[in-house]
Amino acid sequence: MSGPKGIPTFVKDPRLVEERRDQIIRASVDLFISKGFHKTTTREIAQASKFSIGTLYEYISSKEDILYLVCYDINRRMREGLERVLGSALPADEELKLAFRRLVEVIDAMDDDVLLIYQETKSLTREAMHDVLAKETEITKVFADILKRGLEEGVFRIDPQDIDLMAENIVVLAEMWAFRRWALRQKYTLEQYIERQTRLLLSELLPEAEV
Amino acid sequence: MSGPKGIPTFVKDPRLVEERRDQIIRASVDLFISKGFHKTTTREIAQASKFSIGTLYEYISSKEDILYLVCYDINRRMREGLERVLGSALPADEELKLAFRRLVEVIDAMDDDVLLIYQETKSLTREAMHDVLAKETEITKVFADILKRGLEEGVFRIDPQDIDLMAENIVVLAEMWAFRRWALRQKYTLEQYIERQTRLLLSELLPEAEV
Repeated sequence: MSGPKGIPTFVKDPRLVEERRDQIIRASVDLFISKGFHKTTTREIAQASKFSIGTLYEYISSKEDILYLVCYDINRRMREGLERVLGSALPADEELKLAFRRLVEVIDAMDDDVLLIYQETKSLTREAMHDVLAKETEITKVFADILKRGLEEGVFRIDPQDIDLMAENIVVLAEMWAFRRWALRQKYTLEQYIERQTRLLLSELLPEAEV
Repeated sequence: MSGPKGIPTFVKDPRLVEERRDQIIRASVDLFISKGFHKTTTREIAQASKFSIGTLYEYISSKEDILYLVCYDINRRMREGLERVLGSALPADEELKLAFRRLVEVIDAMDDDVLLIYQETKSLTREAMHDVLAKETEITKVFADILKRGLEEGVFRIDPQDIDLMAENIVVLAEMWAFRRWALRQKYTLEQYIERQTRLLLSELLPEAEV
């Protein structure tokens, strides 16, 4: 797996880079959420991640770099969560259920990060934004592929034209657990949310008798 | 209809207040989107709305007020769009189609505003946030009521427990036309988006034979 693009470092040990950057990400997400991205200074980030400013700049070159690292990290964990499901050779409906569950679970564990990205995508550099959007498209494609297989195997009923949009919907309804948490967490536990969204999703895809 | 809560003005003519505030909103949304909410100064807002700073402060008392006015304005237009549909005495599935269409059309016409709110809800004051979230709940309730009626009339099949979540999903899938426009507009026109989302939605709600 290749690392995040375009963020130079002179530090040679890739594991050390990953570890330190993770420390920087954790401190920054808290600050960005409580103070806002624009109001947070690099000095505060250094302080919160317990580095000197000098050390901080060995791992990132700007606040925008950190935002990109947050996106990269979310995406990496989503992919890791989904990869474990995809090798499983389950029927398409079971695979869809499990993939949706994994995605929501990752989002639940990183909900501050996901919320931050919904709010601050605009602050990414054009290059980073391009990379992030391409990576998000890969996540959507995982779901489109499951839908396609389910259609071919006669498990799902869906107009082939609608598969891409349905895949977008699924990813958005998973991310909604983070970006609408103010409304959803008053009503549902994580488990209830996954179960009910899955039920709605399958009622859309399975022939009626099987729902 | 009552005006936005908690934003005092000494100007007596309510139509003048509405007109001027609209002018301020339009200028501010452009600035907030291009420069970011935090980086935009009141001076720039005055300049762009063609008021002196003194006049500006006759209509608002802070940048946060403007953000609240943007939310208020989006919500008012959504409600107006939906109210026209609700009096129509159509069957539940036709009413749902039309209500979803109106909502997406309003969002399309105000997509910058909706995007801004997704990014800056956090910058609202606690009081304004409370008011905005309550108003959003009213929009969701319109859809929950249509779903309930459709279920009672035997037009829709849905577990009564899932009605609230389904209504949330419908509103999010409409707003998604604004907050994921970077992905969606490369693939769909407004008309295609409405048609396809409606088809997916109804395949979830109607007994299979009718889809």
